[in-house]
Formats: sequence, structure tokens, C-alpha cells
Amino acid sequence: MNGPNNGGLQKTVNSVLSVIPLGGVEEIGMNMTVLEYGEDMIIIDAGLMFPEEDMLGIDFVIPDFTYILENREKVRGIVLSHGHEDHTGALPFLLRELNVPVYGTPLTLGLVREKLREHNLEHIELNSVLPREVVTLGVFEVEFIRVTHSIVDGVGFGIKTPVGLIVHTGDFKLDPTPVDGQLMDFHKFSEYGENGTVLLMSDSTNAEKGGFTFSEKEVRRAFEDIFATAKGRIIIATFASNIHRIQQVIDVAVMFGRKVVLSGKSVIANTQIALDLGYLKIPQNTWMRLDELKNFPDNEVVVITTGSQGEPMSVLSRIATDEHKSIKVKEGDIVILSAKMIPGNEQSIGRIINHLFRRGADVIYEKVSEIHVSGHASKEELKLMLNLVKPKYFMPVHGEFRHKIYHARLAEKTGIPKSNIFILDDGEVLEISEGSVAKGGEVTSGRIYVDGKGVGDVEDMVLRDRRRLAHDGIVLVLIGIEKLTGNIVSGPDIISRGFVFEDASQETITDVKELVVNTMKELDSEIIADKSLIQAKIRSVLKKYLRNTMERKPMIMPIIFEV
Amino acid sequence: MNGPNNGGLQKTVNSVLSVIPLGGVEEIGMNMTVLEYGEDMIIIDAGLMFPEEDMLGIDFVIPDFTYILENREKVRGIVLSHGHEDHTGALPFLLRELNVPVYGTPLTLGLVREKLREHNLEHIELNSVLPREVVTLGVFEVEFIRVTHSIVDGVGFGIKTPVGLIVHTGDFKLDPTPVDGQLMDFHKFSEYGENGTVLLMSDSTNAEKGGFTFSEKEVRRAFEDIFATAKGRIIIATFASNIHRIQQVIDVAVMFGRKVVLSGKSVIANTQIALDLGYLKIPQNTWMRLDELKNFPDNEVVVITTGSQGEPMSVLSRIATDEHKSIKVKEGDIVILSAKMIPGNEQSIGRIINHLFRRGADVIYEKVSEIHVSGHASKEELKLMLNLVKPKYFMPVHGEFRHKIYHARLAEKTGIPKSNIFILDDGEVLEISEGSVAKGGEVTSGRIYVDGKGVGDVEDMVLRDRRRLAHDGIVLVLIGIEKLTGNIVSGPDIISRGFVFEDASQETITDVKELVVNTMKELDSEIIADKSLIQAKIRSVLKKYLRNTMERKPMIMPIIFEV
Repeated sequence: MNGPNNGGLQKTVNSVLSVIPLGGVEEIGMNMTVLEYGEDMIIIDAGLMFPEEDMLGIDFVIPDFTYILENREKVRGIVLSHGHEDHTGALPFLLRELNVPVYGTPLTLGLVREKLREHNLEHIELNSVLPREVVTLGVFEVEFIRVTHSIVDGVGFGIKTPVGLIVHTGDFKLDPTPVDGQLMDFHKFSEYGENGTVLLMSDSTNAEKGGFTFSEKEVRRAFEDIFATAKGRIIIATFASNIHRIQQVIDVAVMFGRKVVLSGKSVIANTQIALDLGYLKIPQNTWMRLDELKNFPDNEVVVITTGSQGEPMSVLSRIATDEHKSIKVKEGDIVILSAKMIPGNEQSIGRIINHLFRRGADVIYEKVSEIHVSGHASKEELKLMLNLVKPKYFMPVHGEFRHKIYHARLAEKTGIPKSNIFILDDGEVLEISEGSVAKGGEVTSGRIYVDGKGVGDVEDMVLRDRRRLAHDGIVLVLIGIEKLTGNIVSGPDIISRGFVFEDASQETITDVKELVVNTMKELDSEIIADKSLIQAKIRSVLKKYLRNTMERKPMIMPIIFEV
Repeated sequence: MNGPNNGGLQKTVNSVLSVIPLGGVEEIGMNMTVLEYGEDMIIIDAGLMFPEEDMLGIDFVIPDFTYILENREKVRGIVLSHGHEDHTGALPFLLRELNVPVYGTPLTLGLVREKLREHNLEHIELNSVLPREVVTLGVFEVEFIRVTHSIVDGVGFGIKTPVGLIVHTGDFKLDPTPVDGQLMDFHKFSEYGENGTVLLMSDSTNAEKGGFTFSEKEVRRAFEDIFATAKGRIIIATFASNIHRIQQVIDVAVMFGRKVVLSGKSVIANTQIALDLGYLKIPQNTWMRLDELKNFPDNEVVVITTGSQGEPMSVLSRIATDEHKSIKVKEGDIVILSAKMIPGNEQSIGRIINHLFRRGADVIYEKVSEIHVSGHASKEELKLMLNLVKPKYFMPVHGEFRHKIYHARLAEKTGIPKSNIFILDDGEVLEISEGSVAKGGEVTSGRIYVDGKGVGDVEDMVLRDRRRLAHDGIVLVLIGIEKLTGNIVSGPDIISRGFVFEDASQETITDVKELVVNTMKELDSEIIADKSLIQAKIRSVLKKYLRNTMERKPMIMPIIFEV
């Protein structure tokens, strides 16, 4: 049923819809998809990705949105599925280049508003949309559809386009018993299925996992068990945006007669936004301030905070290492890490758990208790979504290659022919016209590293240097030479960082100096005439020497001053 | 029941047994325990630890064994529980300082012999000991007791000492159906319990995990399912020392008419040792050579290799990225990662899985199939061990703090009073005399970093520098000045590595140069007279500038040449 591959963008052909994931289909995070038809373009989400372990010093990564900027006059708006960073974190970077309206549900916009304020982007038009409302953006009619996820107010989209209906799930799970009673909108998704959906894009994050993801309410049972027997303070770390989790902690705290303290900037800010918007239901006299903590018996207190990923500057980390001003952990305290241990963070989290145990606390975490559930659909739920929407074509999104493969296999099982399943990479284009769907070339895409205030000034070459410096450090060789003769008039001095502990390695340093002196002696006049040749020679001699004697490859930088 | 804490080593008191873990009780790995009584000392295991994520550039870590070397004349021998690196990897480093006999089971010694040869330590006396054999080492009578673990020929120890019997489990699980039919020696452990055991040291690695660890044979079922439907080649990556896993692959290969190729140095070496010692049972005509691979149909082939942890230079990694000479992955191939994803390695492993899927292979790994079981006892097994041995005192070993806490709780549940449970850190001493057991001071201990050929020349300060370099790189500021006036005669030149991509950041570089020039102009004569004061000034000005403008903290090194 596939049309021919056109080998390039058909920008001029008005009857073609281009679906272009700019991020989120080769990684978990930096989700961003462009829909383009004729002179109209909309953007679904603009997320960041947290750095992988070899992206040294990088704060986060955003998608390269050059293609959007090149077509800036076409952009009719950005629609947001929910308020998590991996769907909204690139927004400030996009919006400072491009002033377009943003559409999202109230909580999503509440969180985004805060973020835009920090970036002095208050002028951006934010439009609040409720589930089942429809927004018209150029040729696109975007209907917001409620889904359940680990943040409230999540939606997917049903998008009417000239070539038919496109459904995007956003991040979702099928929580049969959501904390706020707001079910996923099964009817809407099934109606799309009934009326005919051309393309489904669906969340692949948990496509490797069998069965169903547990309901958020399951966590409450674990909390109740812990609260029922706890004699001391309870400290709970979770993601600041997980409003339902916070609601459940508060519900159980009230049930067991404990008052709640919030500690940490993000958890206070997010809770305030959720309270203002009515997404948290809190009885009177539930809160206490951090400075009131000492006035209450330990068994009447719950602290909600962040730091569940072992972040070094977080409240939990400071509590664990006795660096927190008002909370000192002691015997009888119970600390609950109510979150997934994200791969890559286990060692930091493990260290914090060890510190807390050492100080006498009991620590409860994912590995030993059911104090967390995922926000993403597992295999059975993904199949159900496919069965509801019954799309003609399917594109797995939100995942690395293996997640897309697993999701594609599920789609095949539900009866979608393999030839109708499209696995795209970031920047690849899926072209849909009436009666034909095919991959159609590629647009500019990639990963932009954000490091401090720098966006894009750290490139792969810089990261390669950082990895090299991280592995074996740097050795500077300082030499002053007489310009004509090449005779050494000062040095060689050796300065190293991250290479060896110099106080204990005087012998190594002496050997290196001697080697430099000998190398310089043997240089012929041609080399002496060219500083860069001297540098190259010293570098190559030292490199070989250090590899042979020490099996190390520090960065070697000869610095030559001519006198 | 505890005696007083003596606050120091009673080296002169002959009636005291000192139990000193030098490693393995604050970490997973680097297992090493000393028993000392009067003029006699024995060492149980001498293992290494793989580096934690912030130990940049470190190859591995070994325990500081200064205390052993200070008492070298006392050492009667080293007994080894099994052949894994975390129990034998520090041996070459210890044995090149100390020539003492080593005792182990045949496979353990087979693996150690290989390792000692690489370090030119063939002169060390290796004594083969079978389970239930007793070795007398000074006042100690050490009985070897068979246990089951993820390597064959593992043992624990029953050690008769003048103050009573000490039991050390080594690494173990209670495999009810071991591949070679060799059960753990339940009788011996229960006999120790019956006759009275003073102290049990037991493996805490899996003390967080509920229930029982599955039998190694469970993996076979998963293999059979995969082999039964596989139409292409099967490539299995596992730990080279997991002889039972290799045996099972071969058994299933024979069952399904496939021939076996080994690929990778360590898997070939270990298999050869196991074959020579009779630990592998292989029917004739099972093997083929790597270069014969092309002569057989895909469905008659199994490749066994290493690289299950995503190690970049491993065979599997090279296969996944098309860099392997003879094995190119293709559609229809099945790749099985038959190993645990060790925390910290998930991202590298994930990348390899993505690469393999991309090349058309099907990939089967821990998350999606039961193709691996742990080698360590879970909670129920740990309690059973405690019930068998019924020790008066208990010391959890092989674990981080949280593992020891969980294990201690299990011991309490089995009826050991809390006051009889001792949680020691590396280097702490447990002193046992008749009728009294107590912590008694500390000996020198710590972690020695091995980096290339360097042992101990990388210390924490060097690692701090590496972390800093890794995070934000380094900025060199080169200036030639006139000695008397401080006037700049050459430069400032800015050279950076791992900081910014200079081609795209000319503005930053120019700003930095200007700042240096202005700073130099304002220096008063006192500062100009002292090069280190100039350097300090430039460093502090640039540090503040880069923090404010870029939110980065590169290492800043002003280098000043006086002319």
C-alpha cells in the first residue's frame, strides 16, 4: 500500500502532510514533532533530554529546531501534551527565537508560565485548552484528549488534517483508578478509531514491559502500610511535578494525623501552582512551615521534598549528609524515595541511601517496596490503544530504537501490516497524501547541548576533549627557548592536572623533564624553526613514553616561549 | 553479652582473635578479610572493585593492604573462595609484595594461575584444595565447604580458631538444581551449627531481595525457547567465567544441532581452563573455529562471546557497530545478553542493543526475558544459612551499608540478638576472645586506585581535578611580560580544551583576552613582582567572569613567562 519514496521534501506540493519528529524517536526525552501542510505548521511539544553519561558537564540537551526557524512564517502554534520537562524544557529556547502562541491544559501552562518568566518570555501568548476542546491552527484542527500519566492534566491529540486524522497519544498509561477520578478519554480514542485514523503516534517508553502498568493508587497502599507502623518522622522524596503522588501523601498524612511540610523550591512552586488551579485538595490545617517542625512530635510530621535521583544539591542529599539546616536525620525517621531509580543515577541514589541508613533512618525505595509506579503504558495498554484507534499507519514515538522495535511488534500483533509501520529517526520525514504514505527525505536535526548559559557552543569535539581530560588528565610542558638555536633557556616545567598525584610521583615528573630535554637536543634546525613542529615532536615522544610506561593517555600540551 | 570496647588492637594479647575486613564491607567488590591470632594471620580473598562512576579514568580499585605488609611475617597463607575478580583481582598486587602460599579449589587456581603468569608471579606456591579438605595455617584449621554460585568450584570456609569456629560463606546462593549436580554442602554448614559457631560472616549482596534466587537451570528453559524457534545465527554474550552458563548454552546447542564458536580472549581462555580441569562436558564435534562460521548454515551456529556490559572494545560491541572482522550482524540473527545489567552500564548496554536492532538482529536481554539469574542468595536463602549455622555472633559482609543493614535485620529475625550483630566498616577490627566479642579499634585501610600501570599514584585530589576537567574543561592563559614593568610583550593567548568550541566562540575568547589585558594594566607593582600573585589575580577575575556570563567553572591556568 506504500507510495513511492520521493527522496526529498515535497514542500511545494500542497496535498502532502509531512510528519517530522525532530526529537524523541532516537532517545527518551527531547520530544518534539512537527506537522506541516502547505503553508501551515504546528509543533507538538518541545522537550529537553537529560544528558547521557558521556555528555560530560552538559546540563541538558534540546533538539535542533533549525527547520522550524527556516519555516518560521508557517508556524501556527505549539501544542503541549503535558508539563514534564521532556515535553516542555526546550520551549524557552524555541520561544526566544520565535514568538508563536502556545496551547496547553491549565496545569501544563501553569508550569510553563513559571519557566517562561525565568527566561523573560512573559510576552508569549499562552492559551488554556480543556480536554475535548478543539483549537484551529491553520489547516489543522487539534482536539485535546485526556490521558492519564504521572502528572495531572496530560492530553493526547486528535488532529484533523486535509489528508485525514492523525492521533498523537502524548505520554500516557491506562490508569483504571486515577487519583482524581479523571479517566483517560476512552470514548474519544475509540471514536477516532471508528471514524478512521490515518496515523497513530504512540508513546513507546515502556514498550519493553509486559502486562499492565499499576495504577497510581497502588502506591497509596504502600504508603498506608508504612504510615501505620511509623513511630518517627516520615520524609518522602518524589518528583516535584507528580501532583497525584503529593496528593496521596497528603491524604495518607491526614488519615494518620500527620501535618505536612514542603521543603525545596520546585516542590513548593509546583504545589502552589496545583493548589491555585484546584488540582490539589487539601483539608485545612494540613500544612506546617519548616520552622515549625521542631514544635511537633516526630510521629505527627511528614516532609515532602525532592532529590529522589540523588542530585547532589537537593534537599534529600543535604539531609543525608548532615548539611541541611533544619532537618537532621535520626534513629526512627523513615525516608521514602517514591520514584524510579533512573538508570545512570543508581550509584548516587545508593550512596544517599547508605548515608541515611548510617544515620539511623529506615529507608524505603523502589527495590524494596512498591512505593512507585510508572507513568507509561506497558505492552497490554499499548495494544489496547492500538485497538481503540485502529490506525491505518503507525509510528512509534518516545523511545530509543529498541523501544520503537518492541512497539512496532505490538502493532503488528494487533493486525497492522509491517509495511504500514514507520520507524523514523529524528529529522526523518513521513509524507502522507491521499492514498500514499512514505518516508520522504530528511530535514536538519540533531542534539544541541546546553551547558550553563551556553546553548550549542559545546559540540562533540569539546565533549571528546572532556572525556579525554576526564580519563587521564592533562600534562603541560612549559619551555622557554632561544629562538635561533632552540637552546632551552627556561624549563622544561611540567604541570599536570588529573594525571598523577605529583607529590608522590616526582620520579615520573623528573623522567618526563629529562625526556623533553633530550628530545630538544636532537631536534634539527628545520624543526627548531617551527614552533608547531617542536610541539608535535614533544607531544609524540611523551605520548609514546607515557603509554608504554604507565598505560595512560593524558592530553599533552607543549607550550613554547621563544626568547 | 558484649565485652568492653578496647579502643585499640590487642596485638600482644594472645588469646584474642582479630577479624579485620580490609575491603568488601563498604562496597560491592574488593573483598578481603584478615584473621589474626597471636603470631598467625590468614587472608580470605583479595579482590578488586570496578570503579564507581565518579572515579574517572580508573581501571579498578584494590584494598589498601598496608596492615598485612606491616605484619608480613605473620601471614601463613591466602585462602580463596572462588575465582571471580572481586575475590582474586588484588592478588597480583599483594603477591608482588608478599610471597605466601595461596589455597583454592582447582578452577579458582586455574584462573589465578593465568593471572599470576601475566604479572610474572609464577613462583607463587598454589595449593589445590578440594571441598571438605582441611588446610592448617598456623593456629587456623581451614575447612573448605562447597557452595553454589555463578562460577563453579566456589567454597565457603569453616575455620577452627583458638576462640572457636568462624564460618565465612564466600559468595553463595542455594541452588537446588545446580548444573553440575554439586549441591551446596548443607550438611557441613548444619554440622557447624550443631557443634557451635562463634561468628558467621555471610554474603550480603542480595540482602535487599525477597524470596529465593532462581536456579541456574531456569536459564536453560529460556534458552530452549529461543533456540526452538530461531532461524538464524544465535550469538550469546555472557561473563567469561560463568562456566555453567557456557555449559548450558552448549547443551542446548547440541540439543538443537548447532555447533559452537567461541569468540573473545577471556571466554576462550576460561573455557580452556574449565575443559582441562573437567568442569565442562562437551560432546565431540561440538566446536567450530571462527573462520569456519561461513561454511555452516546460519541455523547450525551458536557464537559464545563476552561484552554483556557494553564494554566498548568487546567482541559484542564490535559486532554491534560493524567493526568485527568475521561476524556481521544481519536480519534473522538473535543476540542474547545473558547477564545482569550492572547499574552504571545500562546506557552503554542500551546503545549496543539499539545498534543490533538497527542492523536487523533480534536482541534478548534481562529486561525482556529470563536469560539470566543472580549468583547471590536472596532473603530466604540468607535466613536459611543463618538457621543452619546458628552463629552466636554475626557480621554481614560483601555489601554496601544498606545491604549490611538488610542482612542484619534478617539475622535479628532468625533470633540473633541485635547486640550480637556487628556491622563493620573496612579496616575496623572485631576482637573475639573467650566470652567476649567487641569492636576494637581500626587498622590502616582504604581504596587504592589502579590506573594503567600506576597503583596508588592517582589519589582523590587527582580525581577531583579529573571531575572538574570533565565538567567544564580547562582554559590556559599564556602571557609574556616584561619582568620589571609587568607590561605584556606577548599574548595573552587563550588555549582551551573541553571548554567551548573555539571556532564558534571567538567572541568569548576575545572577551577573555580583553579582560586579561585590562586586569594586567591595573596590577600594582607589588603584584607584578610576584608571578604567583599575577596568576591568582587573573584566575580570580576570569573565574568570576565565566561564572557570571556562562555559568561555567573551567579550570583556569594562567601561565606567565617573564622576559
